Amino acid sequence: MKIENPHPFPWQFAERASQMQSSFIREILKVTQQPEIISFAGGLPSPATFPVERMQAAFDKVLRDNGKVALQYGPTDGYLPLRQWIADSLSTNGAKIVPEQVLMTSGSQQALDLLGKVLIDEGSKVLVETPSYLGALQAFSVYRPNFVSVATDEDGLVPSSLNDVAAGARLLYALPNFQNPTGRSLSIARRQELVETCARLGVPLVEDDPYGSLSYKGEPAPKMVAMNPDGVIYMGSFSKVLTPGIRLGYVVAPLALVRRLELAKQAADLHTSQLTQMVVHEVIKDGFLDQHIPTIRTLYGDQCQCMLDAMAEHFPASATWTKPEGGMFIWVKLPKQINAMELLDEAIKQKVAFVPGAPFYANEPETNTLRLSFVTVPPERIRAGVAILGKLIAERL
Amino acid sequence: MKIENPHPFPWQFAERASQMQSSFIREILKVTQQPEIISFAGGLPSPATFPVERMQAAFDKVLRDNGKVALQYGPTDGYLPLRQWIADSLSTNGAKIVPEQVLMTSGSQQALDLLGKVLIDEGSKVLVETPSYLGALQAFSVYRPNFVSVATDEDGLVPSSLNDVAAGARLLYALPNFQNPTGRSLSIARRQELVETCARLGVPLVEDDPYGSLSYKGEPAPKMVAMNPDGVIYMGSFSKVLTPGIRLGYVVAPLALVRRLELAKQAADLHTSQLTQMVVHEVIKDGFLDQHIPTIRTLYGDQCQCMLDAMAEHFPASATWTKPEGGMFIWVKLPKQINAMELLDEAIKQKVAFVPGAPFYANEPETNTLRLSFVTVPPERIRAGVAILGKLIAERL
Repeated sequence: MKIENPHPFPWQFAERASQMQSSFIREILKVTQQPEIISFAGGLPSPATFPVERMQAAFDKVLRDNGKVALQYGPTDGYLPLRQWIADSLSTNGAKIVPEQVLMTSGSQQALDLLGKVLIDEGSKVLVETPSYLGALQAFSVYRPNFVSVATDEDGLVPSSLNDVAAGARLLYALPNFQNPTGRSLSIARRQELVETCARLGVPLVEDDPYGSLSYKGEPAPKMVAMNPDGVIYMGSFSKVLTPGIRLGYVVAPLALVRRLELAKQAADLHTSQLTQMVVHEVIKDGFLDQHIPTIRTLYGDQCQCMLDAMAEHFPASATWTKPEGGMFIWVKLPKQINAMELLDEAIKQKVAFVPGAPFYANEPETNTLRLSFVTVPPERIRAGVAILGKLIAERL
Repeated sequence: MKIENPHPFPWQFAERASQMQSSFIREILKVTQQPEIISFAGGLPSPATFPVERMQAAFDKVLRDNGKVALQYGPTDGYLPLRQWIADSLSTNGAKIVPEQVLMTSGSQQALDLLGKVLIDEGSKVLVETPSYLGALQAFSVYRPNFVSVATDEDGLVPSSLNDVAAGARLLYALPNFQNPTGRSLSIARRQELVETCARLGVPLVEDDPYGSLSYKGEPAPKMVAMNPDGVIYMGSFSKVLTPGIRLGYVVAPLALVRRLELAKQAADLHTSQLTQMVVHEVIKDGFLDQHIPTIRTLYGDQCQCMLDAMAEHFPASATWTKPEGGMFIWVKLPKQINAMELLDEAIKQKVAFVPGAPFYANEPETNTLRLSFVTVPPERIRAGVAILGKLIAERL
């Protein structure tokens, strides 16, 4: 029955496909998953924080009470009780969010893809932080925008730097809390200024917030979406506060936009698993996250401090790094002559891994930067790995 | 804290977003979900076939034995044991499929989106059946192709009609088994001819096969991917043989293409739920589908026959319809003067619903066609609904 294929296909790919690249991080992760490697490269949350038994009980309950509904096709916008929960959790006295503004997505990565699909034409101007989250650059790149990098400093994105570059931008993508990759947070004064600047310039502001509740000191910072719900697109995720493997995130946007995102999602994957949404609602509806998130904060905060202490001891004085107050990452700036990509080759030989910083820049990479994650590595291995890195850096000076 | 927004945003959408439309079917479904309506409009499988307890036991087992892995981020290409199972199930003596060719997707709808993303530029020629699956038209439309409709008759797509139109086409999209919307199948001789024609003309052939195993008579037809694995892209789904709400499908393609699809998926949603993939593998690995699928075939086959019998009794002689040997749909052609959209308005007043056929055409819709689904309606309601439709049609003659 098999026929001869006269000419194996020279697949003609779409132009957008020709520049697709695998995330450098996912490539590194393949190399560094051997257990003997001390890996600071991961962006994965610690499985020690996964509430497995509680999830199991919720799957049981939802399938027992409502299995036929949970396993059937569902609405594109998502499971209403969960969308209501999200709307309530984001509403403030000054700004009410309604469930109609909430679109459930297959992880918040999908929200990035949908935003790209609906807002970005080829050549559209898209503003991003310097550096920015690699997954967002990757998602938007598919739609071939013109990325413009916006200046940042120790307090995060510098709003005044928008004035000269923002004209006509389709969106500004910002990650204000414990940013990936830098661990930096936008100061409260800057948030207000940024929201005002974007509103004045007519630039939609995307507030990506996967780490917002992972503040080691407790109280999360005010959200920009509450300052201007008509002009801010908010993205959230259950990956860092519950578990990532279930792929559940959401985007909250003004109605005119969220309806377009919903149409794009309908064409992209019809809807996100009903079962998953019902289970997550079952897990969180009675306040579980209020007890659970503090345990994640404590774990990550302790390991962050452990890494910072080890860096202070082992890294040379000419290196600088961020001191995050939440989240999962520390960002290191080495003396200019050190190329972090070359350092990684050396480090892997010594069984230590990290992510070089260059891929996080949309334009003009700083090759002397790197990202360290501490969340899945126990303290003694953090100390051992940082000591090795410190030695390798010192050797290169 | 809330600021004044000087000008509510006139959102500037991407050009591709301006023509996005909601699936007409999903709109109809909203109207017809009231229980008093006899709905032949749905494309949903019957929940009576969902193996809820078996799924529940599998969730329990996977979470108990392997919860931390199931709930963590996973690989973009998918869970290897499941990909191996799929590769084995598609391999024949003449054509071996390897797991590296299998990409797991968030429902097979996502495979359509990824194929569009990777293969379609604006204006690219895309060949589709007349009529074709609406969800595919919707997914590909995002990438703004030039759809060219290929002739079909009672035996499905007419391969010889490709010669004049196929030059330079990026793909031909075909649904060879119990097609949605017509219920028709491509004859075996035509399959061979179609694969040969596509290979000769250098057109990638997409074989979308959600219903292939739902043959009422048993033995599924030979798959085109086995006739030319280098030139056929195969799409499968667990939605119609297990449950749709979990959103699990897959695409099988030559390596050069599947790696591009994987990159596109990485940017689109990182990966599909590990937990879902592990659970489905747990459910099916010991041959469960071999016992389960025959029960679905029997249910659907009986209800299809019930509807065909009722149509023979109540529909006027000037209407014609398909006699499916599997799947979920019957396609009706009314006399030319009857507009199915207007008929639907009348039918809904009498508490009966169906889907007009026009939206299934990429070009030149035949407005006197409609699609009936029988799978979720019990026999006495099938008979009652068909009687009402028959009367309404007769009144319009």
